[in-house]
Amino acid sequence: MSDCHLSFQCSERWLMLLLQALFLLCYFLGVPNVSDIWKDITYSPVKSSGTQLSTEIYPVFQDVNHMVVFGFGFFLVVLRRFGYSSTGFNFLLFALGVQCSLLGEDLLVFLRGQQNEVGLGSLAKAVVSMTAVVISTGAVLGKANPVQLIVMTLVELIFFYMSRCINRTFLEVPEHLSLMHVHLFGAYFGLALTSRFPEPPPGLDKNRSTPKSELFSVLGTVFVWVFWPSFNSILAKSKEEPVLNTYLALAVSAVSAFMLSALTSKDGKFRMAHIRSAVLAGGVTVSYTAHSIQHPWIAMILGLLGSAITILGSHCLQRCFNPALKLQDTSGVHFTFGLPAVLGAVAAVVLHAVEQGIDTQWNDLSSLGYYILDDVGAFCQTISTALITGFITGLILNIKLFKAMHVSKYFDDQLYWEVSFKMISD
Amino acid sequence: MSDCHLSFQCSERWLMLLLQALFLLCYFLGVPNVSDIWKDITYSPVKSSGTQLSTEIYPVFQDVNHMVVFGFGFFLVVLRRFGYSSTGFNFLLFALGVQCSLLGEDLLVFLRGQQNEVGLGSLAKAVVSMTAVVISTGAVLGKANPVQLIVMTLVELIFFYMSRCINRTFLEVPEHLSLMHVHLFGAYFGLALTSRFPEPPPGLDKNRSTPKSELFSVLGTVFVWVFWPSFNSILAKSKEEPVLNTYLALAVSAVSAFMLSALTSKDGKFRMAHIRSAVLAGGVTVSYTAHSIQHPWIAMILGLLGSAITILGSHCLQRCFNPALKLQDTSGVHFTFGLPAVLGAVAAVVLHAVEQGIDTQWNDLSSLGYYILDDVGAFCQTISTALITGFITGLILNIKLFKAMHVSKYFDDQLYWEVSFKMISD
Amino acid sequence: MSDCHLSFQCSERWLMLLLQALFLLCYFLGVPNVSDIWKDITYSPVKSSGTQLSTEIYPVFQDVNHMVVFGFGFFLVVLRRFGYSSTGFNFLLFALGVQCSLLGEDLLVFLRGQQNEVGLGSLAKAVVSMTAVVISTGAVLGKANPVQLIVMTLVELIFFYMSRCINRTFLEVPEHLSLMHVHLFGAYFGLALTSRFPEPPPGLDKNRSTPKSELFSVLGTVFVWVFWPSFNSILAKSKEEPVLNTYLALAVSAVSAFMLSALTSKDGKFRMAHIRSAVLAGGVTVSYTAHSIQHPWIAMILGLLGSAITILGSHCLQRCFNPALKLQDTSGVHFTFGLPAVLGAVAAVVLHAVEQGIDTQWNDLSSLGYYILDDVGAFCQTISTALITGFITGLILNIKLFKAMHVSKYFDDQLYWEVSFKMISD
Repeated sequence: MSDCHLSFQCSERWLMLLLQALFLLCYFLGVPNVSDIWKDITYSPVKSSGTQLSTEIYPVFQDVNHMVVFGFGFFLVVLRRFGYSSTGFNFLLFALGVQCSLLGEDLLVFLRGQQNEVGLGSLAKAVVSMTAVVISTGAVLGKANPVQLIVMTLVELIFFYMSRCINRTFLEVPEHLSLMHVHLFGAYFGLALTSRFPEPPPGLDKNRSTPKSELFSVLGTVFVWVFWPSFNSILAKSKEEPVLNTYLALAVSAVSAFMLSALTSKDGKFRMAHIRSAVLAGGVTVSYTAHSIQHPWIAMILGLLGSAITILGSHCLQRCFNPALKLQDTSGVHFTFGLPAVLGAVAAVVLHAVEQGIDTQWNDLSSLGYYILDDVGAFCQTISTALITGFITGLILNIKLFKAMHVSKYFDDQLYWEVSFKMISD
Repeated sequence: MSDCHLSFQCSERWLMLLLQALFLLCYFLGVPNVSDIWKDITYSPVKSSGTQLSTEIYPVFQDVNHMVVFGFGFFLVVLRRFGYSSTGFNFLLFALGVQCSLLGEDLLVFLRGQQNEVGLGSLAKAVVSMTAVVISTGAVLGKANPVQLIVMTLVELIFFYMSRCINRTFLEVPEHLSLMHVHLFGAYFGLALTSRFPEPPPGLDKNRSTPKSELFSVLGTVFVWVFWPSFNSILAKSKEEPVLNTYLALAVSAVSAFMLSALTSKDGKFRMAHIRSAVLAGGVTVSYTAHSIQHPWIAMILGLLGSAITILGSHCLQRCFNPALKLQDTSGVHFTFGLPAVLGAVAAVVLHAVEQGIDTQWNDLSSLGYYILDDVGAFCQTISTALITGFITGLILNIKLFKAMHVSKYFDDQLYWEVSFKMISD
Repeated sequence: MSDCHLSFQCSERWLMLLLQALFLLCYFLGVPNVSDIWKDITYSPVKSSGTQLSTEIYPVFQDVNHMVVFGFGFFLVVLRRFGYSSTGFNFLLFALGVQCSLLGEDLLVFLRGQQNEVGLGSLAKAVVSMTAVVISTGAVLGKANPVQLIVMTLVELIFFYMSRCINRTFLEVPEHLSLMHVHLFGAYFGLALTSRFPEPPPGLDKNRSTPKSELFSVLGTVFVWVFWPSFNSILAKSKEEPVLNTYLALAVSAVSAFMLSALTSKDGKFRMAHIRSAVLAGGVTVSYTAHSIQHPWIAMILGLLGSAITILGSHCLQRCFNPALKLQDTSGVHFTFGLPAVLGAVAAVVLHAVEQGIDTQWNDLSSLGYYILDDVGAFCQTISTALITGFITGLILNIKLFKAMHVSKYFDDQLYWEVSFKMISD
């Protein structure tokens, strides 16, 4: 064990300790309002509506929580020697990030001067925001050491909250839409970040999957798939529409995932990696529009397009685009979350414009243009913030201070976990 | 890769494409009412009750959804070389079938001239109906190619909706009871279907399980077990009774599953396959009566009997009955779902008759006879429709057009999935 | 197969049959009140509030049920040759115990002369009480045969209900607090019990884990982690506070689990066994105080301390304390549940005293002393009852009648399950 490595491990422990102490201090100083809010609710006449709200939101919150911690955790268990790290680090980053994210929510509420925020609602939004980090983690999976991942988590959350704040304040994007930029931000932040990491050597076979590891990953994927309607409807007042639209989009994208996987593979067989990505595409694609689509067939077409863009994207990107740009997207977040989110954002602009146009009978074109500009602006702001900050974070993470691991050590649990070779071959 | 096989694969892709396009068209043309209903609810004074309903039904709906997609998907991961196909095809058929099933629900609502149907309620019923297909899939697991499975899904759903419609319209069976025929229909449809498939050669050892595949299957089983109370109470107004009755029946059937497994095995050891089947028997047995049983001990006795019939059935059927009838029931749906459902239906008739008899003090015997005839009629109609249509579907699926796979290729992921032998032995 | 072993297996079957018959008889004779209560609710004007309650409690109840059956079941799948028994026996004991536990709840209600108990509430409390048995099972995992486990379940439940009854009646502990002693009771009952079992021989390597079995165990752990807020808030009227406090405590304990695991291991690597135990410590520690803590940072500090005591405990106990006391704590329930529960109980006394002190401005010291004495009394009563009854039960279980298995057969599925060596090495 070299000194260098030892010192990295130490830095990692002390970083966690420092951050945890910092968060504790922040909660001690800065979050008296959480319990104040509770008191407001408890002693005010609106108590019943508060209780009502918590009864309504709690099952949905648990679904989303379960989806992000368990579903995404096991979704990432693909690499055959990286099972511990995939679930373990996802868990660590989630536990750390959600504390930071909840502070962010409270800060946003404080900045807006609002008071009537309820605890569980903030927590739900904090968990949803964490999805950005979880998605980014998928892109650098197996290449970043825990210190780099922890720094990435904090930096990404800060920038995501900044981006959300800009969207809310200057572009007047509604809360639930600004939150749904999470896939877009997570995917492109992760991609820009991973482009700064050195490539793994071509002969490395540790980034393969085995049937057993794929089966664990399918387990996670099905979890994410099942809970996605809760994810898309978490801030909605009426659950019916977002749930049904998301459900149908997911169903269609599952069917077309199988169809397109058979079409694009050599001898007409299904490829599990394709299917894992593409079944989720429908949920990402309708995330912006699930609450506003009036006709289920529109959601279904979006699901179909999302799935198509995912599988075609994975087919083309991995051959042409990624080598050129030196992208090393370990678990395919670009085509699983990035491209469908872009498609969804474009679809949201079009649908919003058509709806507004029909409402005003295409008379008020200037106001229509303003709406479109607003939506396009939010989209461009989010994606460019993600790319720029991701790129810069990637540069910073690869300075000597962070002691990035050597490429030959990529994708290996043994560097971080007490696990013997003998046991792995068991 | 022979031309024949290639053309099958092609037909499979185009079949999926065709069906998906067809469903999209149907939703485009035929389901404007879903959003109409929403508008009715949104703009009418009963809005609050609609929102209330969706808040109440959503957690239960998610439970059932999770149970059918995830629980049954992993319940079927028993065969050691068929893990991908078991979960994957269950997922594909579910995603395809639920779209078809939702159309069926809307058609039923339309035929009855009702308007006050709420989106999530229809979706819940569509998911429950899909259970029939999932159960049938268990019977032909590993023997049918995807084209055959897709055709089976559609045909089975159509006939199940027909059978439900007959039960509702002519035999005046209440909605929640007609839906609970799903186990009976699924099991006997699957059995009749699988009897038309050629037998696997006796030496084939691919339909064995391994401890790891069994463990995944146990994982699915526990999921199904935990969510069964939600399944049985999904249409109930008062949840208390169906939940408690189902819960107790499941608990008793779990205990007696262990007891009977030890009794029937050679040297008093437990057999996981027995237990997996029998713990679920209680849920199936009380599915007809969970909402109406007034005394928990009746539900407990039904759970005990269900478990007994499952294990004794599995013991006798696999030795005597199946070889004679050339039944090849891969995952034992006959004794897991078929026999307990028959028992449950008989118990429902008896309990209903006794209840009616006590209410009328055994005076109005003609009306009592009418009730019994009604219940027995619904049962006979369902089971005979299932057997006849299953048999015919089995005959059709084995014509040359569908290019059934050769028996030597049974139970093997490699035919449909990109997975190498080397990886499987990993 | 020796006669002795055969006769043990027989006794096990007949014991299950006998118990199940006994429970059926009890439900037949003694639980008419369940349906009576339903009738009271159904026909009384408070019906709506009853339905409301069941809608509110049902999702939380399902979470807890899922957590205990599935989460703890897979949490115990650590040993490489004991996967079937870990999940299977947990399932059997749960199914058996919950029937006994529900009878206990009804008896408690009957003894107190209350009538306004709702079915689902009793069932939820029965499931929570079963956690004590599940925790104790973890301590004797792989060393007790099914007969011993079944007897342990019943005896432990009876004593736990006695202890709860004493706490409620004589020490006036509120219902939700008396229920939360479940971790304390379960852990120390299990430890006292396991100290009476003979030690496994030093060379036995069957109690090692493999990466695959660890991954299944992580799967269970994440489930327990995700559902813990529901566990701690199950009896609370207002869910906001217990959920948020438990959530933050769990997040902090997850972060510090990683931190401390890296600090205590030799070369700064993480150890999965540490992390599995310590991430749950936060939930145990705040179980007594989750509903009453007003400031989130207190819950966070409790989570940090819980995690620290778990990892340091596991470090020291396994080296010094356990060999001296001849404790063989298979899955580490002492430091996973025992020590954090002690810490939580102490913290509850301190926080309660401080709160009372501030309320009375430290004037009414005699009444304050009375409160403290009450809390300390309940804690001492619970832990001493657990230790004494556990010790006695352990003595009884090791008499010849129960035919305890030989130490060379410890930790092996093959003794109880039909599973071949060939399959295990698959």
